[in-house]
Amino acid sequence: MVRLLGIDPGLRFTGWGIVDVDGNRLCHVADGVIATDGDSPVPERLRLLHDALLALVQAHRPQEAAVEETYVNRNGSSTLKLGYARGVALLVPALAGIAVSEYGAMAVKRAVVGTGAASKDQVGMMVRRLLPGATIRRADASDALAVAICHAHHRASALRVMAGTRMA
Amino acid sequence: MVRLLGIDPGLRFTGWGIVDVDGNRLCHVADGVIATDGDSPVPERLRLLHDALLALVQAHRPQEAAVEETYVNRNGSSTLKLGYARGVALLVPALAGIAVSEYGAMAVKRAVVGTGAASKDQVGMMVRRLLPGATIRRADASDALAVAICHAHHRASALRVMAGTRMA
Repeated sequence: MVRLLGIDPGLRFTGWGIVDVDGNRLCHVADGVIATDGDSPVPERLRLLHDALLALVQAHRPQEAAVEETYVNRNGSSTLKLGYARGVALLVPALAGIAVSEYGAMAVKRAVVGTGAASKDQVGMMVRRLLPGATIRRADASDALAVAICHAHHRASALRVMAGTRMA
Repeated sequence: MVRLLGIDPGLRFTGWGIVDVDGNRLCHVADGVIATDGDSPVPERLRLLHDALLALVQAHRPQEAAVEETYVNRNGSSTLKLGYARGVALLVPALAGIAVSEYGAMAVKRAVVGTGAASKDQVGMMVRRLLPGATIRRADASDALAVAICHAHHRASALRVMAGTRMA
Protein backbone atom coordinates (compact mmCIF):
# COMPACT_ATOMS: atom_id res chain seq x y z
CA MET A 1 0.00 0.00 0.00
CA VAL A 2 1.22 3.48 -0.92
CA ARG A 3 -0.07 6.79 0.41
CA LEU A 4 -0.26 9.65 -2.11
CA LEU A 5 -0.62 13.40 -1.60
CA GLY A 6 -2.21 15.38 -4.45
CA ILE A 7 -1.88 19.18 -4.53
CA ASP A 8 -3.70 21.73 -6.70
CA PRO A 9 -1.73 24.86 -5.82
CA GLY A 10 -2.82 28.50 -5.81
CA LEU A 11 -1.81 31.53 -3.75
CA ARG A 12 -5.43 32.15 -2.66
CA PHE A 13 -6.61 28.50 -2.42
CA THR A 14 -4.50 25.35 -2.48
CA GLY A 15 -6.46 22.11 -2.63
CA TRP A 16 -4.99 18.94 -1.17
CA GLY A 17 -6.08 15.32 -1.03
CA ILE A 18 -4.65 12.11 0.37
CA VAL A 19 -5.37 8.71 -1.15
CA ASP A 20 -4.15 5.22 -0.27
CA VAL A 21 -3.42 2.92 -3.20
CA ASP A 22 -3.35 -0.86 -2.84
CA GLY A 23 -2.87 -2.44 -6.25
CA ASN A 24 -5.89 -1.22 -8.24
CA ARG A 25 -7.84 -0.17 -5.15
CA LEU A 26 -8.09 3.49 -4.15
CA CYS A 27 -9.08 4.65 -0.67
CA HIS A 28 -9.86 8.24 0.34
CA VAL A 29 -7.97 9.33 3.46
CA ALA A 30 -8.47 13.09 3.76
CA ASP A 31 -8.82 16.29 1.74
CA GLY A 32 -9.15 20.01 2.24
CA VAL A 33 -8.25 23.49 1.13
CA ILE A 34 -5.56 25.84 2.46
CA ALA A 35 -6.71 29.45 2.09
CA THR A 36 -4.51 32.50 2.53
CA ASP A 37 -5.72 36.04 3.11
CA GLY A 38 -5.46 38.14 -0.06
CA ASP A 39 -4.82 41.24 2.07
CA SER A 40 -1.75 39.75 3.81
CA PRO A 41 1.80 40.32 2.54
CA VAL A 42 2.90 37.64 0.05
CA PRO A 43 5.85 36.32 2.15
CA GLU A 44 3.40 35.80 5.05
CA ARG A 45 0.94 33.94 2.77
CA LEU A 46 3.75 31.69 1.49
CA ARG A 47 4.81 30.97 5.06
CA LEU A 48 1.25 29.97 5.94
CA LEU A 49 1.03 27.70 2.85
CA HIS A 50 4.42 26.14 3.73
CA ASP A 51 3.43 25.53 7.36
CA ALA A 52 0.04 24.03 6.41
CA LEU A 53 1.56 21.66 3.80
CA LEU A 54 4.32 20.67 6.22
CA ALA A 55 1.71 19.89 8.91
CA LEU A 56 -0.18 17.70 6.39
CA VAL A 57 2.98 15.81 5.43
CA GLN A 58 3.84 15.27 9.10
CA ALA A 59 0.29 14.18 10.03
CA HIS A 60 -0.42 11.83 7.10
CA ARG A 61 3.10 10.72 6.09
CA PRO A 62 2.44 10.38 2.32
CA GLN A 63 5.14 8.44 0.46
CA GLU A 64 4.71 10.20 -2.89
CA ALA A 65 3.29 13.54 -3.99
CA ALA A 66 1.73 14.83 -7.21
CA VAL A 67 1.21 18.48 -8.13
CA GLU A 68 -1.06 19.82 -10.87
CA GLU A 69 0.74 21.77 -13.59
CA THR A 70 -1.61 24.67 -14.06
CA TYR A 71 -1.20 26.88 -17.10
CA VAL A 72 -2.27 30.47 -16.91
CA ASN A 73 -3.18 32.59 -19.92
CA ARG A 74 -3.78 35.76 -17.95
CA ASN A 75 -1.19 38.44 -17.25
CA GLY A 76 2.37 37.82 -16.08
CA SER A 77 1.62 39.01 -12.55
CA SER A 78 -1.00 36.24 -12.05
CA THR A 79 1.36 33.64 -13.49
CA LEU A 80 4.13 34.83 -11.14
CA LYS A 81 1.81 34.49 -8.11
CA LEU A 82 0.76 31.00 -9.20
CA GLY A 83 4.48 30.26 -9.50
CA TYR A 84 5.04 31.26 -5.86
CA ALA A 85 2.37 28.81 -4.68
CA ARG A 86 3.52 26.01 -7.00
CA GLY A 87 7.11 26.59 -5.89
CA VAL A 88 6.10 26.08 -2.25
CA ALA A 89 3.93 23.06 -3.18
CA LEU A 90 6.91 21.44 -4.94
CA LEU A 91 9.36 22.46 -2.21
CA VAL A 92 7.62 21.11 0.90
CA PRO A 93 7.45 17.44 -0.19
CA ALA A 94 11.02 17.72 -1.57
CA LEU A 95 12.24 18.99 1.83
CA ALA A 96 10.59 15.95 3.42
CA GLY A 97 12.35 13.60 0.98
CA ILE A 98 9.10 12.70 -0.82
CA ALA A 99 9.23 12.17 -4.60
CA VAL A 100 7.14 14.79 -6.44
CA SER A 101 5.55 14.21 -9.86
CA GLU A 102 3.88 16.86 -11.98
CA TYR A 103 0.82 16.33 -14.19
CA GLY A 104 -0.83 18.66 -16.69
CA ALA A 105 -4.59 19.30 -16.50
CA MET A 106 -5.20 17.16 -19.62
CA ALA A 107 -3.39 14.15 -18.14
CA VAL A 108 -5.42 14.48 -14.93
CA LYS A 109 -8.73 14.61 -16.83
CA ARG A 110 -7.72 11.68 -19.02
CA ALA A 111 -6.79 9.58 -15.97
CA VAL A 112 -9.98 10.36 -14.05
CA VAL A 113 -12.66 10.71 -16.76
CA GLY A 114 -11.01 9.02 -19.75
CA THR A 115 -10.83 12.14 -21.91
CA GLY A 116 -8.66 15.27 -21.72
CA ALA A 117 -11.68 17.32 -22.81
CA ALA A 118 -13.71 16.53 -19.66
CA SER A 119 -15.41 19.38 -17.80
CA LYS A 120 -14.62 20.33 -14.19
CA ASP A 121 -18.02 18.91 -13.13
CA GLN A 122 -17.29 15.56 -14.80
CA VAL A 123 -13.94 15.38 -12.98
CA GLY A 124 -15.65 16.12 -9.66
CA MET A 125 -18.31 13.48 -10.28
CA MET A 126 -15.75 10.81 -11.21
CA VAL A 127 -13.56 11.64 -8.19
CA ARG A 128 -16.61 11.03 -5.95
CA ARG A 129 -17.37 7.76 -7.78
CA LEU A 130 -13.75 6.54 -7.56
CA LEU A 131 -13.49 7.46 -3.86
CA PRO A 132 -16.82 6.32 -2.37
CA GLY A 133 -17.53 7.56 1.13
CA ALA A 134 -15.54 10.77 0.67
CA THR A 135 -17.33 14.02 1.47
CA ILE A 136 -15.67 16.63 -0.71
CA ARG A 137 -16.98 20.13 -0.22
CA ARG A 138 -14.72 22.24 -2.38
CA ALA A 139 -13.70 22.01 -6.04
CA ASP A 140 -10.04 22.72 -5.18
CA ALA A 141 -9.95 19.65 -2.89
CA SER A 142 -11.66 17.54 -5.57
CA ASP A 143 -9.05 18.67 -8.14
CA ALA A 144 -6.25 17.73 -5.72
CA LEU A 145 -7.75 14.25 -5.24
CA ALA A 146 -7.97 13.97 -9.06
CA VAL A 147 -4.20 14.68 -9.27
CA ALA A 148 -3.56 11.97 -6.66
CA ILE A 149 -5.75 9.52 -8.63
CA CYS A 150 -3.90 10.46 -11.84
CA HIS A 151 -0.60 9.73 -10.10
CA ALA A 152 -1.92 6.38 -8.86
CA HIS A 153 -2.61 5.45 -12.51
CA HIS A 154 0.74 6.70 -13.77
CA ARG A 155 2.95 5.61 -10.87
CA ALA A 156 5.00 3.05 -12.75
CA SER A 157 6.01 5.48 -15.51
CA ALA A 158 6.10 8.45 -13.13
CA LEU A 159 8.67 6.66 -11.00
CA ARG A 160 10.75 6.13 -14.12
CA VAL A 161 10.84 9.74 -15.26
CA MET A 162 11.11 10.92 -11.66
CA ALA A 163 10.07 14.54 -11.74
CA GLY A 164 10.86 14.73 -8.05
CA THR A 165 13.46 13.51 -5.61
CA ARG A 166 15.83 11.01 -7.17
CA MET A 167 15.82 7.43 -6.05
CA ALA A 168 18.90 5.26 -5.83
CA MET B 1 23.43 49.04 12.86
CA VAL B 2 21.18 46.87 10.73
CA ARG B 3 22.18 43.93 8.56
CA LEU B 4 20.32 43.56 5.25
CA LEU B 5 20.04 40.62 2.87
CA GLY B 6 19.36 41.42 -0.80
CA ILE B 7 18.18 38.67 -3.16
CA ASP B 8 17.90 38.69 -6.96
CA PRO B 9 16.06 35.40 -7.50
CA GLY B 10 16.12 33.04 -10.46
CA LEU B 11 15.71 29.27 -10.82
CA ARG B 12 19.10 28.94 -12.57
CA PHE B 13 21.02 31.67 -10.69
CA THR B 14 19.98 33.49 -7.51
CA GLY B 15 22.24 36.38 -6.53
CA TRP B 16 22.56 37.37 -2.86
CA GLY B 17 24.35 40.12 -1.01
CA ILE B 18 24.66 41.18 2.61
CA VAL B 19 25.21 44.79 3.64
CA ASP B 20 25.49 46.45 7.05
CA VAL B 21 23.84 49.85 7.40
CA ASP B 22 24.85 52.31 10.11
CA GLY B 23 23.02 55.58 9.60
CA ASN B 24 24.11 56.70 6.12
CA ARG B 25 27.09 54.36 6.02
CA LEU B 26 27.01 51.13 4.03
CA CYS B 27 29.40 48.27 4.59
CA HIS B 28 29.77 45.19 2.34
CA VAL B 29 29.66 41.92 4.30
CA ALA B 30 29.36 39.15 1.71
CA ASP B 31 27.83 38.25 -1.64
CA GLY B 32 27.52 35.33 -3.99
CA VAL B 33 25.39 33.33 -6.39
CA ILE B 34 23.39 30.15 -5.78
CA ALA B 35 23.30 28.07 -8.96
CA THR B 36 21.06 25.06 -9.55
CA ASP B 37 21.54 22.42 -12.21
CA GLY B 38 19.15 22.93 -15.14
CA ASP B 39 19.06 19.15 -15.70
CA SER B 40 17.84 18.38 -12.16
CA PRO B 41 14.13 18.00 -11.32
CA VAL B 42 12.52 21.30 -10.29
CA PRO B 43 11.55 20.20 -6.74
CA GLU B 44 15.19 19.24 -6.16
CA ARG B 45 16.41 22.63 -7.46
CA LEU B 46 13.96 24.45 -5.17
CA ARG B 47 15.16 22.37 -2.22
CA LEU B 48 18.76 23.33 -3.00
CA LEU B 49 17.81 27.03 -3.27
CA HIS B 50 15.89 26.80 0.04
CA ASP B 51 18.76 25.09 1.83
CA ALA B 52 21.36 27.58 0.51
CA LEU B 53 19.27 30.64 1.48
CA LEU B 54 18.54 29.13 4.90
CA ALA B 55 22.28 28.52 5.45
CA LEU B 56 22.98 32.19 4.53
CA VAL B 57 20.32 33.44 6.95
CA GLN B 58 21.71 31.24 9.71
CA ALA B 59 25.34 32.21 9.02
CA HIS B 60 24.90 35.99 8.62
CA ARG B 61 21.74 36.65 10.69
CA PRO B 62 20.34 39.50 8.58
CA GLN B 63 17.59 41.50 10.29
CA GLU B 64 15.74 42.54 7.12
CA ALA B 65 15.54 41.17 3.59
CA ALA B 66 14.79 42.73 0.20
CA VAL B 67 13.88 40.83 -2.97
CA GLU B 68 13.95 42.18 -6.52
CA GLU B 69 10.59 42.15 -8.27
CA THR B 70 11.58 40.91 -11.70
CA TYR B 71 9.12 41.20 -14.54
CA VAL B 72 9.27 38.75 -17.38
CA ASN B 73 7.93 39.41 -20.86
CA ARG B 74 8.76 35.99 -22.21
CA ASN B 75 6.44 33.00 -22.21
CA GLY B 76 4.28 31.87 -19.30
CA SER B 77 6.51 28.87 -18.59
CA SER B 78 9.54 31.13 -17.90
CA THR B 79 7.45 33.41 -15.69
CA LEU B 80 6.17 30.39 -13.76
CA LYS B 81 9.75 29.17 -13.16
CA LEU B 82 10.83 32.64 -12.02
CA GLY B 83 7.82 32.52 -9.69
CA TYR B 84 9.08 29.27 -8.11
CA ALA B 85 12.44 30.87 -7.30
CA ARG B 86 10.91 34.15 -6.09
CA GLY B 87 8.45 32.17 -3.95
CA VAL B 88 11.32 30.38 -2.22
CA ALA B 89 13.28 33.67 -1.89
CA LEU B 90 10.30 35.31 -0.18
CA LEU B 91 9.53 32.22 1.92
CA VAL B 92 12.91 31.54 3.53
CA PRO B 93 13.31 34.95 5.28
CA ALA B 94 9.61 34.82 6.26
CA LEU B 95 10.13 31.39 7.88
CA ALA B 96 13.03 32.91 9.86
CA GLY B 97 10.82 35.81 11.03
CA ILE B 98 12.71 38.36 8.92
CA ALA B 99 10.72 41.21 7.34
CA VAL B 100 10.82 41.01 3.53
CA SER B 101 10.42 44.02 1.24
CA GLU B 102 10.04 43.91 -2.53
CA TYR B 103 11.45 46.45 -4.99
CA GLY B 104 10.92 46.77 -8.73
CA ALA B 105 13.93 47.04 -11.05
CA MET B 106 13.24 50.78 -11.65
CA ALA B 107 13.24 51.56 -7.92
CA VAL B 108 16.55 49.68 -7.50
CA LYS B 109 18.18 51.59 -10.40
CA ARG B 110 16.85 54.91 -9.08
CA ALA B 111 18.22 54.21 -5.58
CA VAL B 112 21.65 53.12 -6.78
CA VAL B 113 22.30 55.25 -9.89
CA GLY B 114 19.75 58.05 -9.50
CA THR B 115 17.72 57.18 -12.59
CA GLY B 116 15.34 54.32 -13.38
CA ALA B 117 16.75 54.25 -16.92
CA ALA B 118 20.27 53.20 -15.80
CA SER B 119 22.00 50.33 -17.60
CA LYS B 120 23.06 47.10 -15.89
CA ASP B 121 26.72 48.20 -16.20
CA GLN B 122 26.00 51.53 -14.50
CA VAL B 123 24.30 49.70 -11.63
CA GLY B 124 27.30 47.39 -11.26
CA MET B 125 29.73 50.32 -11.29
CA MET B 126 27.78 52.26 -8.67
CA VAL B 127 27.42 49.18 -6.43
CA ARG B 128 31.24 48.86 -6.46
CA ARG B 129 31.61 52.58 -5.70
CA LEU B 130 29.08 52.49 -2.83
CA LEU B 131 30.64 49.35 -1.34
CA PRO B 132 34.40 49.97 -1.58
CA GLY B 133 36.57 46.94 -0.89
CA ALA B 134 33.98 44.47 -2.17
CA THR B 135 35.10 42.01 -4.83
CA ILE B 136 31.99 41.20 -6.82
CA ARG B 137 32.53 38.68 -9.55
CA ARG B 138 29.06 38.02 -10.89
CA ALA B 139 26.33 40.37 -12.15
CA ASP B 140 23.64 38.44 -10.19
CA ALA B 141 25.49 39.13 -6.92
CA SER B 142 25.93 42.79 -7.89
CA ASP B 143 22.17 43.06 -8.58
CA ALA B 144 21.41 41.51 -5.18
CA LEU B 145 23.69 44.04 -3.46
CA ALA B 146 21.87 46.78 -5.42
CA VAL B 147 18.55 45.55 -3.97
CA ALA B 148 20.05 45.65 -0.46
CA ILE B 149 21.33 49.22 -1.07
CA CYS B 150 17.90 50.21 -2.40
CA HIS B 151 16.32 48.83 0.76
CA ALA B 152 18.82 50.71 2.93
CA HIS B 153 17.64 53.95 1.22
CA HIS B 154 13.96 53.11 1.52
CA ARG B 155 13.97 51.50 4.96
CA ALA B 156 11.86 54.11 6.76
CA SER B 157 9.00 53.91 4.24
CA ALA B 158 9.56 50.20 3.61
CA LEU B 159 9.01 49.52 7.30
CA ARG B 160 5.76 51.44 7.10
CA VAL B 161 4.26 49.54 4.17
CA MET B 162 5.71 46.27 5.48
CA ALA B 163 5.70 43.96 2.49
CA GLY B 164 6.97 41.23 4.77
CA THR B 165 6.41 39.85 8.22
CA ARG B 166 4.21 42.08 10.30
CA MET B 167 5.60 43.89 13.28
CA ALA B 168 3.70 44.53 16.47
